[in-house]
Amino acid sequence: MVNLLYLPLAAGVLSLFFAFYKFKWVGKQSPGNEKMIEISSAIKDGSMAFLKQEYKVLLLIAVAVAILVTLPERGFLKLVALSFGVGALFSGLAGFIGMKAATNANSRTTEAARQGIVPALRVAFNGGSVMGLSVVGLSIIGLSGLMIIYTKFFGADIVSLNDTVIPILSGYSLGASLVALFARVGGGIFTKAADVGADLVGKVETGIPEDDPRNPATIADNVGDNVGDVAGLGSDLCESYIGSIIGAVTLGGTIGNAELVYLPLIIAGLGVIVSMIATAFVRTKEGGNPQSALNFGTIGAAVVMVIASAPVILFLAPKTFIAGGQTYTNMGIFYAIIVGLLSGVLIGIITEYYTADGKKPVLDIARQSQTGAATCIISGIEKGMLATGLPVVMLSIGIYVSYLAAGLYGIAFAALGMLATTGIQLAVDAYGPVADNAGGLAEMAQLPAEVRERTDKLDSVGNTTAAIGKGFAIGSAAFTALSLFVAFKEKAGIEVIDVTKPIVVCGLLIGGMLPYVFSSFVIGAVGRAAFKMIEEVRRQFRELPGILEGTDKPDYVSCVDIATQAAIKEMVIPGISAVVIPVIIGYAAGPEMLGGVLVGVTVSGIMLALFMANSGGAWDNAKKYIESGNYGGKGSEAHKAAVIGDTVGDPFKDTAGPAMDIVIKLMTIVALIIVGNIS
Amino acid sequence: MVNLLYLPLAAGVLSLFFAFYKFKWVGKQSPGNEKMIEISSAIKDGSMAFLKQEYKVLLLIAVAVAILVTLPERGFLKLVALSFGVGALFSGLAGFIGMKAATNANSRTTEAARQGIVPALRVAFNGGSVMGLSVVGLSIIGLSGLMIIYTKFFGADIVSLNDTVIPILSGYSLGASLVALFARVGGGIFTKAADVGADLVGKVETGIPEDDPRNPATIADNVGDNVGDVAGLGSDLCESYIGSIIGAVTLGGTIGNAELVYLPLIIAGLGVIVSMIATAFVRTKEGGNPQSALNFGTIGAAVVMVIASAPVILFLAPKTFIAGGQTYTNMGIFYAIIVGLLSGVLIGIITEYYTADGKKPVLDIARQSQTGAATCIISGIEKGMLATGLPVVMLSIGIYVSYLAAGLYGIAFAALGMLATTGIQLAVDAYGPVADNAGGLAEMAQLPAEVRERTDKLDSVGNTTAAIGKGFAIGSAAFTALSLFVAFKEKAGIEVIDVTKPIVVCGLLIGGMLPYVFSSFVIGAVGRAAFKMIEEVRRQFRELPGILEGTDKPDYVSCVDIATQAAIKEMVIPGISAVVIPVIIGYAAGPEMLGGVLVGVTVSGIMLALFMANSGGAWDNAKKYIESGNYGGKGSEAHKAAVIGDTVGDPFKDTAGPAMDIVIKLMTIVALIIVGNIS
Repeated sequence: MVNLLYLPLAAGVLSLFFAFYKFKWVGKQSPGNEKMIEISSAIKDGSMAFLKQEYKVLLLIAVAVAILVTLPERGFLKLVALSFGVGALFSGLAGFIGMKAATNANSRTTEAARQGIVPALRVAFNGGSVMGLSVVGLSIIGLSGLMIIYTKFFGADIVSLNDTVIPILSGYSLGASLVALFARVGGGIFTKAADVGADLVGKVETGIPEDDPRNPATIADNVGDNVGDVAGLGSDLCESYIGSIIGAVTLGGTIGNAELVYLPLIIAGLGVIVSMIATAFVRTKEGGNPQSALNFGTIGAAVVMVIASAPVILFLAPKTFIAGGQTYTNMGIFYAIIVGLLSGVLIGIITEYYTADGKKPVLDIARQSQTGAATCIISGIEKGMLATGLPVVMLSIGIYVSYLAAGLYGIAFAALGMLATTGIQLAVDAYGPVADNAGGLAEMAQLPAEVRERTDKLDSVGNTTAAIGKGFAIGSAAFTALSLFVAFKEKAGIEVIDVTKPIVVCGLLIGGMLPYVFSSFVIGAVGRAAFKMIEEVRRQFRELPGILEGTDKPDYVSCVDIATQAAIKEMVIPGISAVVIPVIIGYAAGPEMLGGVLVGVTVSGIMLALFMANSGGAWDNAKKYIESGNYGGKGSEAHKAAVIGDTVGDPFKDTAGPAMDIVIKLMTIVALIIVGNIS
Repeated sequence: MVNLLYLPLAAGVLSLFFAFYKFKWVGKQSPGNEKMIEISSAIKDGSMAFLKQEYKVLLLIAVAVAILVTLPERGFLKLVALSFGVGALFSGLAGFIGMKAATNANSRTTEAARQGIVPALRVAFNGGSVMGLSVVGLSIIGLSGLMIIYTKFFGADIVSLNDTVIPILSGYSLGASLVALFARVGGGIFTKAADVGADLVGKVETGIPEDDPRNPATIADNVGDNVGDVAGLGSDLCESYIGSIIGAVTLGGTIGNAELVYLPLIIAGLGVIVSMIATAFVRTKEGGNPQSALNFGTIGAAVVMVIASAPVILFLAPKTFIAGGQTYTNMGIFYAIIVGLLSGVLIGIITEYYTADGKKPVLDIARQSQTGAATCIISGIEKGMLATGLPVVMLSIGIYVSYLAAGLYGIAFAALGMLATTGIQLAVDAYGPVADNAGGLAEMAQLPAEVRERTDKLDSVGNTTAAIGKGFAIGSAAFTALSLFVAFKEKAGIEVIDVTKPIVVCGLLIGGMLPYVFSSFVIGAVGRAAFKMIEEVRRQFRELPGILEGTDKPDYVSCVDIATQAAIKEMVIPGISAVVIPVIIGYAAGPEMLGGVLVGVTVSGIMLALFMANSGGAWDNAKKYIESGNYGGKGSEAHKAAVIGDTVGDPFKDTAGPAMDIVIKLMTIVALIIVGNIS
């Protein structure tokens, strides 16, 4: 049976080779003229400098967390620390590779855009694919590799090792989550501080255009796209992907059936292969719509995945299995995958409705911007709050139906269904910042306007795909958190976590509060970092008046340094709190209260994540709608109001919001690891 | 034993007489000159017109709700409808009396302020006292009266009637909650629409001062203070007060001890007497600080209450009693009261820290306003989110300690401890809008500047007391909701509500989402109503240019009408949803999911209420801080940014935020009433 694990391992290795091939291919394209190479190098150096600083701090924190979490463990359970280390390393590596590829691809995309949109799309997407395929490849190699080693080491069947091997594996998920949280928070603070700083002083105060090379913060702004949207995103999806597999593996172990333990890995391996094939679907012809190419890739992958998983499940999973006293069939698992995919897609479509250009909510916000910033902000908050409604209903239906289909195991598989094709989804997501950077390079290197137009076209698409990606992120986080939480309860040996018990209510209240306090820290951090950036840009303009006349060269490096220092400093407290709080509550108040805290964090965190993502996205597009010439266009009073809305939304949608999903899972996995010692 | 109920009944009657005496006393004071009487009449007429319209709609809704909730009940349980009717009537009456008294007191306070601050404080506070004492008097008369009638009618001891009488009484709480929710939402929409409309067109666009008689919305603005801050507040606190008593009565019935059923009413009756006495504590001398007078009244009342309740509890409650398998002593009940009061005061003090002028959070927001509206808004959101932290910790400690002291009954008594002296607290709260109106009258009647200065001084105090009042409101809502929720579970006959069950998780998610959607509706309603108001004021200025020159009289009535129509129309959907949703979920999905929904609403609602109240309050005071001459003072860029912050905060702190507490309890009480039919 254990030999089955070599299949996902092989898929992972194949995926890495494929990613390496794409990486080399991108490297062979022309990086453009000297000016472009110079700017691109500055972006690359800034990004790598940030990552180096971040990983140094992370190494210290990871060692501390490894000790904190595993010190009280007994005997073999100390291997949790090994799994943790591998998870952290691979998650960090995923971010690193993705950024390396993205910063290689940016100037090459710009250069390709001189020829046309077809070659530019190919370079940008291949750049993104490197990260997508590396993330899934590394994740699955690590997980199946560790399982192979541990089962050999303990020399027994996986099911009889349910109490040792599977808990050890959760360390792998913890490592990935920890790195992901820091990458998201640190990268998110960096990118928004640089963005706000560059915009407020450059665009608003000085009146120079976006990405103008005279703006000292412009390189930092482009670095931000890489450290936030590429490295942060890569570690984030790596975390989700691993979490969903571990959730299903753990519940399979609880059922006590070896096939059900291996099945999630096999399905994930299948998803890796499907993602590789689907990268070939993404192509367009000159004059064609790059959006359809991207949609064809991701939706095509999902369809192929569903079709291909049916025979695998029917062949591999037992015809019937018993969980929680109920009998389920293997078809149930298949249905759960479909339910997961459907609810993810629906949540994504609803999210798109609330945030997309041309739809009523965004038009409303744009209209309300005419009466000033106050009505613009109020309207955005109103829409964002309303946008929690339908997605949560979809989520609840998804949870319930997948539970009916295959019990708690079905809930875990619903998450897996959404994330099995992470490889291609992430490739599309990472393509975005590459195209964004390529546009910045075209501007800074003063290339002909048609080049910028082409990169802008590449940049503007992918929103639908990104929206569906967001739906998958939030949906899978809820499903995964729930399956990990059930595993927590079973390991804690408590029958029920009863919300009419005061201790559980206290936990729920405290848990419900934590996402607010966490968001407060992160939003405040963006504000503080942006403030420093604004002061630095103002200082440079003041002390070197030649910058604006083009006679002095701005000091890009100092802006990158300021954002780096601020982001690294500010990410530590919220990041560490997410690990330490469940440990403290677990040891001080026991598993029941901790259970309440986890549920509170999940419920409150999902709502805040949806609210912040939707408000932020809607403000952004309302601003763009006005910029495209409505209500007076750029420079009008309505535009000024909408810019304020967009600035408020920035830390919502790109820093605090996306970190919430990780916080939820990180806290649950910490609880799952320490539960053996607190109950 | 049942004769004990005549004690609270007598206290209630006494309280009404006292309120009537104060009402007459206020009426005897001089209402000022002709101009003042004219304006005051306009405010009074507008307020009464709104209330009349609102109560007409409410009557229809109340009949529908009575049918909806009680139709499926069997036999005597139809009496729920009677209790419901009495509760709704009394809650409405409380709002009506309070508004009558407040609109009588406003011009008389202005007139008294010509003499000095001492007589002005006396008139304003006596005006507020009429409402405070009427609310508690009516509440307790209704509740003890119904209990006397029902126990006589069924002709048996209260404990053996635990399954009939006590459920019937919960209808009383439902009636009060329903009216309170509509009063809060309707009044809140009216007052903020008028406020925003008057400010944006009058102060910002036209540049005339606040309360200028040339502003057509100025009467509507003053009417808003009455319908929102007086009538809305009165029904709200009436609801909280009744809810906390019913919670304790229900749990006393569950324990199966008659003394524990009567005790909450006796303690409430004692609180009424203490409140009456404490009104005499509120007095100051010329040059003295009205703030200390108010603090002396409320804090004095709380101290007297604690001291007086000890002998009552020791004499009346059984020495020991058994609840949930644990033995508790009567001293435990006394400790629970102290815990409740302490946690309420601490939450209030923390809330004050986050929102008060001169404290770090407000100073931070003011400072961040220098870099524009975006940083002002971000900073306010950050502080508001952070401000959920400590109050929730206090709340959790309060819940746990009061549970240790006297079990679930202790939790209910902690709420009662906070609310026993509602009479005096409400008097202080209602004093605020009277002083506010008095200032408006001084301005509109063009009285000497010193009169306005004195009323401003009266208006500016009472913030600390109001902050503690808010702490009590949110704290008691949590305690009461929890005790009602436990009663729900016991009546549902379900052993536990286990959050690891998917159906409960679905309920939690949907419940957690509802406060967001509710807030979205309410915030949107304020925006829509304000928009109509802005258009009307602009229309009048455009069509009658003589208004600004003082030659034409503005049409105040049309502004009042517009706010009235909009508020009435907009309050219906959110108000009805809060009743209908638990009914639908209960019948469609059963008590377990409904239990999950209630918990989700409570957790998410408390967080949103704290967040919105604190952000809104902090923005308001940051604006005031700048207006007092900092960062450039009035008219500076920082001031403009802070005004935007304040406008965003208005619907947060005065409409959506305060309604949240009522929504939580209303949904729980609806669940408690229908649970007999769904389990």
